[in-house]
Amino acid sequence: MKTVKVGLIGTGYIGRCHAIAYAQAPTVFNLQGKLELEYLAEITPELAAQKAQEFGFKRSTGDWRDVVNDPNVDVVDICTPNFLHKEIALAAIKQGKHVYSEKPLALTALEAKEMYDAATQAGVKTLVGFNYMKNPTSQLAREIIRNGEIGEVIHFYGTHNEDYLASPSTPIDWHCYRAKAGLGALGDIGAHIINMAQYLLGEDIVSVSGDLQTVIKQRPDPQDKTKLVEVENEDQASSLLRFASGVMGTIETSRIACGRKMGLTYVITGTKGTISYTQERMAELKLYLHDDDPARQGFKTILTGPLHPDYKPFCVSAGHGIGFNDQKTVEVRDLIVGLTEDKPMWPDFEEGYKVSRILEAIAKSADSKRWVDVNEI
Amino acid sequence: MKTVKVGLIGTGYIGRCHAIAYAQAPTVFNLQGKLELEYLAEITPELAAQKAQEFGFKRSTGDWRDVVNDPNVDVVDICTPNFLHKEIALAAIKQGKHVYSEKPLALTALEAKEMYDAATQAGVKTLVGFNYMKNPTSQLAREIIRNGEIGEVIHFYGTHNEDYLASPSTPIDWHCYRAKAGLGALGDIGAHIINMAQYLLGEDIVSVSGDLQTVIKQRPDPQDKTKLVEVENEDQASSLLRFASGVMGTIETSRIACGRKMGLTYVITGTKGTISYTQERMAELKLYLHDDDPARQGFKTILTGPLHPDYKPFCVSAGHGIGFNDQKTVEVRDLIVGLTEDKPMWPDFEEGYKVSRILEAIAKSADSKRWVDVNEI
Amino acid sequence: MKTVKVGLIGTGYIGRCHAIAYAQAPTVFNLQGKLELEYLAEITPELAAQKAQEFGFKRSTGDWRDVVNDPNVDVVDICTPNFLHKEIALAAIKQGKHVYSEKPLALTALEAKEMYDAATQAGVKTLVGFNYMKNPTSQLAREIIRNGEIGEVIHFYGTHNEDYLASPSTPIDWHCYRAKAGLGALGDIGAHIINMAQYLLGEDIVSVSGDLQTVIKQRPDPQDKTKLVEVENEDQASSLLRFASGVMGTIETSRIACGRKMGLTYVITGTKGTISYTQERMAELKLYLHDDDPARQGFKTILTGPLHPDYKPFCVSAGHGIGFNDQKTVEVRDLIVGLTEDKPMWPDFEEGYKVSRILEAIAKSADSKRWVDVNEI
Amino acid sequence: MKTVKVGLIGTGYIGRCHAIAYAQAPTVFNLQGKLELEYLAEITPELAAQKAQEFGFKRSTGDWRDVVNDPNVDVVDICTPNFLHKEIALAAIKQGKHVYSEKPLALTALEAKEMYDAATQAGVKTLVGFNYMKNPTSQLAREIIRNGEIGEVIHFYGTHNEDYLASPSTPIDWHCYRAKAGLGALGDIGAHIINMAQYLLGEDIVSVSGDLQTVIKQRPDPQDKTKLVEVENEDQASSLLRFASGVMGTIETSRIACGRKMGLTYVITGTKGTISYTQERMAELKLYLHDDDPARQGFKTILTGPLHPDYKPFCVSAGHGIGFNDQKTVEVRDLIVGLTEDKPMWPDFEEGYKVSRILEAIAKSADSKRWVDVNEI
Repeated sequence: MKTVKVGLIGTGYIGRCHAIAYAQAPTVFNLQGKLELEYLAEITPELAAQKAQEFGFKRSTGDWRDVVNDPNVDVVDICTPNFLHKEIALAAIKQGKHVYSEKPLALTALEAKEMYDAATQAGVKTLVGFNYMKNPTSQLAREIIRNGEIGEVIHFYGTHNEDYLASPSTPIDWHCYRAKAGLGALGDIGAHIINMAQYLLGEDIVSVSGDLQTVIKQRPDPQDKTKLVEVENEDQASSLLRFASGVMGTIETSRIACGRKMGLTYVITGTKGTISYTQERMAELKLYLHDDDPARQGFKTILTGPLHPDYKPFCVSAGHGIGFNDQKTVEVRDLIVGLTEDKPMWPDFEEGYKVSRILEAIAKSADSKRWVDVNEI
Repeated sequence: MKTVKVGLIGTGYIGRCHAIAYAQAPTVFNLQGKLELEYLAEITPELAAQKAQEFGFKRSTGDWRDVVNDPNVDVVDICTPNFLHKEIALAAIKQGKHVYSEKPLALTALEAKEMYDAATQAGVKTLVGFNYMKNPTSQLAREIIRNGEIGEVIHFYGTHNEDYLASPSTPIDWHCYRAKAGLGALGDIGAHIINMAQYLLGEDIVSVSGDLQTVIKQRPDPQDKTKLVEVENEDQASSLLRFASGVMGTIETSRIACGRKMGLTYVITGTKGTISYTQERMAELKLYLHDDDPARQGFKTILTGPLHPDYKPFCVSAGHGIGFNDQKTVEVRDLIVGLTEDKPMWPDFEEGYKVSRILEAIAKSADSKRWVDVNEI
Repeated sequence: MKTVKVGLIGTGYIGRCHAIAYAQAPTVFNLQGKLELEYLAEITPELAAQKAQEFGFKRSTGDWRDVVNDPNVDVVDICTPNFLHKEIALAAIKQGKHVYSEKPLALTALEAKEMYDAATQAGVKTLVGFNYMKNPTSQLAREIIRNGEIGEVIHFYGTHNEDYLASPSTPIDWHCYRAKAGLGALGDIGAHIINMAQYLLGEDIVSVSGDLQTVIKQRPDPQDKTKLVEVENEDQASSLLRFASGVMGTIETSRIACGRKMGLTYVITGTKGTISYTQERMAELKLYLHDDDPARQGFKTILTGPLHPDYKPFCVSAGHGIGFNDQKTVEVRDLIVGLTEDKPMWPDFEEGYKVSRILEAIAKSADSKRWVDVNEI
Repeated sequence: MKTVKVGLIGTGYIGRCHAIAYAQAPTVFNLQGKLELEYLAEITPELAAQKAQEFGFKRSTGDWRDVVNDPNVDVVDICTPNFLHKEIALAAIKQGKHVYSEKPLALTALEAKEMYDAATQAGVKTLVGFNYMKNPTSQLAREIIRNGEIGEVIHFYGTHNEDYLASPSTPIDWHCYRAKAGLGALGDIGAHIINMAQYLLGEDIVSVSGDLQTVIKQRPDPQDKTKLVEVENEDQASSLLRFASGVMGTIETSRIACGRKMGLTYVITGTKGTISYTQERMAELKLYLHDDDPARQGFKTILTGPLHPDYKPFCVSAGHGIGFNDQKTVEVRDLIVGLTEDKPMWPDFEEGYKVSRILEAIAKSADSKRWVDVNEI
């Protein structure tokens, strides 16, 4: 059994999800290879030590460079705020480590390209944490589309809306600064629906017409709530899209969409049917087939089950339900298989770079009030 | 009791809906004035006579000009295919008749302007059949927005998708020809969601970035199905929008959206809440309020009832359900009240003209690949 | 064209629904025969005159006996409170009138039998206002079952829950007195789901095990709200059922079920599929077919449309929606056809009597704490 | 940190769920104590060894008695078919082990009593695997009820329907034999909804009126499918209930309910509101409050989130979704806390025994066609 040693950098929101996935994946999936939870970095040695104990890592450090430089680490898992992704990834690649990075890959398309190029040249493997496409239900959607069950796709509508910054009284944080986060809602969550669109349709977005808006222009300083600080990036964005084959699409994203807790949704229309999905009901896919008996047509609610991709390892009964962390567990399975069996992993840095270009094209289009080809970026 | 005499022109799909509304309205609403079903025109005297009998009209004719010129007719109700709207309306206005016309008002914005100007100069009253906004449920949405219950509106997403032309084997008809219908999905059903957007937000759309596509480029000739004929207008369209106050929006429309039987939907996000609606569940409104106890937040499904606008005349119990024709019945109530009590009617030709301009701006934007101000039209 | 003259007695909640249906039916359905709105009775001549004007009746009276005895009246339509049904119906039958009565037919099964026997002996036609089964959507459910699409039915679950008396502060009214209403929730709304069960399955309920409860034992006197008055019948009831063929079932009814505005629902399980319905979404039927591809199984949401029974006369497009009054309009169509073309009408007094027996068997079972055969009543 | 050593017996469907929960729980919950996966038994040493490797257990055996007798095992986890629960549990208790058993506790109430008495006398701790009540969403329902948010509970309706034996061609298995399974649908899944009812209402069911039916009376022999074998227990069952305080209720259960993949549902009506839930949407609770503004009443869909019990350890964002195995992970957390911190665990063998008595009372009532007090069992 081949073993790969993981170095985890960052243990906040998403780092914790990785840890749960690391814990669960070996039991859920009966794999040939395995991961060892080798080394963990946080901003102080104390926090690192505490998290290593909680997450089951062997060693810990207060300096992420230790992880990147450690000869016993095979893959570096980057769960830091966005602005550190590039520096850590390049350092890890330089040491010949594989890299498993959270999204968005970088603050700009240029940075993402640098990372993608470095990984390609170094010949290391990469994986980006677009976990929603790992959900068995979205894999089922992909399968239905690939099979041609809804005919040829003619339209894509997708959203990733949340409301984590909906209250104007919520203090400003790093997500709102260009230097720390890059784009706003687009980079933080819009990236997911862009990746999902490309995954589901199996083709790239090639041109866009976007619109961006910062609705809440100032937010309280977290230290002194009477003081207001400028928000530097967009709260909401929409974009018309065209895919490579000419398919029309629209995406929308917002971090101030009241009531949306996990508002990743898509509706994919084909010449023979339609798929509809919302991540808030992550174990349900709605499917309409136009060739059904006209008196018995309708959207069917399919509950994900063992006959669908990557569900059965979780449960042998349909409709029993998969959770958020289960998606990440599938992603970690891909990491284990990718590294211990030398299989391709996806979405890789190339896809991460593509997503960054599209996001930037949307922003550029909004500035210039015209359609922008992704190739312009 | 003041009485107004109606002349109906056209008895197809929508003419029949008008007839049902005429029959039902006086009993549903206990009004001061009343309508008399005076005169009915169809393309032959025989068909006209038959329909007059079915619909309860006193007299009938095979020539619509007879209706327009009849001194006993006070209001002309136009339910013909789109390309006839202008000629009939102008003729009726010339005779000093009030005009109740189906949507879209005309084939082009220019024609719509001509009609609007003529009505204004003649001082006649006008009403356009955007019936979906008459639904008590959408009236409730308007009330919630106007009250500020969801704060300030920051985003509008709306669709009017149907699948009546989804099958490539469906023969071509007048909807697909520019000379008969003008625009395609945009004119036929997109007009409804444009009007709905303006109604709900209480402000106008001022600039757009659109995209149009004819997916099924040829359809069988209805006479000889082996022969294929060119489709001349769009099957689907999307557009980013900005309203007068700067609010962002997106609308989508399609006549080939498999599975959508009455796919008029909207999601309206405000700074304090969100409204969500689909016409396929026309008696339900979903409402989320961000100021609810955070542990008890969620979208509430409100069933329309007697405490909401224009429901109680249909039924004194909530949740018992209103139907498609009931919307038209509210519209006809507005007609009766408007004409017999000399009250304003809305949407009038001005709104019909505004909608036409927006539709045309979307088409122009799609051609020029840039944002277009509605004022350019 | 044969004409039948109607005498309406009672113009409250349900009388008004009848009036709307009378107004709408001739235009919706293009029939050979027609109704004339001849005579209307209310408790005072003044109210009667006002309602006759509103509803379009020719003549009016403050004494229902005038209607029953009028030689120009062919059918008596009874929309009074329950306790008057029997007396009026028997008087009408004695005069050889056909009778169209609201449900429940009578206060007791014995009274219902008397009415049924009288009608049979007099050879008059009867119709009982179980309007929910006239809904095209429930007619579709019946068609699916009859076709064997869900195999053999093995289980019925149905409810008719509302919340019109959910607040303990709602004053007592006639529904709560045995002498005026008979049973409580069972008689008022439970009757509908009993009739629906028998309609959908096409067979009778033969034995029951019931449970009844008066939760709010006293209510304010409407005149003096500080005074509390005893509630004499049940607020909620449940019953296990067996149908003639041995099929198991359960029904529940309540007039204090918070949140249920029109909570008539059913789930019908067969050996090959399942149907699920709720009247609050009266234009949707959910259908599951077990023989579907196992990887594509799920409940399909069918929107009622022109391919389903009695929908097309309302609208030629699917999914556009039918309302509460449209059900009554179908019922009135059945009345017109039944009387002018001498066709059978159903549910008739025989069915009304059957429903009364079942309701009484449920009450008896609750008293005796054992299963009761409907034949015992 | 206190450590407790687990011996797992049985690694099928539910044993695997336990293993996933054991893997995940320590990372999800940051606990004072921990479990060691000590010993695992299966029917052959080979299978045991393989599963021990897969599930991360140290040692394995082909004889469950080895686990029960091992001095290093502190708690015995029973995941075998039902008919072995009693023998293993009694043997484990005799050795002073704590017992964590799957449901139903035993084949009969008498056996369950024996187990409960033995555990009580030995002073060992017990936990029964009624995992659905561990779901944060159902815990939220419990909290709402306990807080009095829906007033006093007046009605409970619950189901646990599945369709795993819906096809008559599915071969017979141990679930269908009295000697192996005891009751049919009631014991296998009905037990869950009985436990859920008692958990949610916080009181016991005291009398029942039940009905049972074996619809598919014979099934193919798994070895020779041309041969049909008798099914010995019920496919479906329904029962009216009364709780200790007099609250009315109804439960239904079926293993042949086409389309129900995880059909555990409940509707709980109170004097001031109603809760509605379906396990197929396990992260959603519907809540109606009657004291809301009458014009804004409706069922609110609450997505479970970090403000609700036991959700936050899985994810700090609301609406991101919990899965089936997450419920078991909460259950295992209860086990760890119960054993390492000497806290009470529930549902324990007392509750398991209560559930068995109720199931048996339902069966007895069905036989005798009358209400049965649970005390009669």
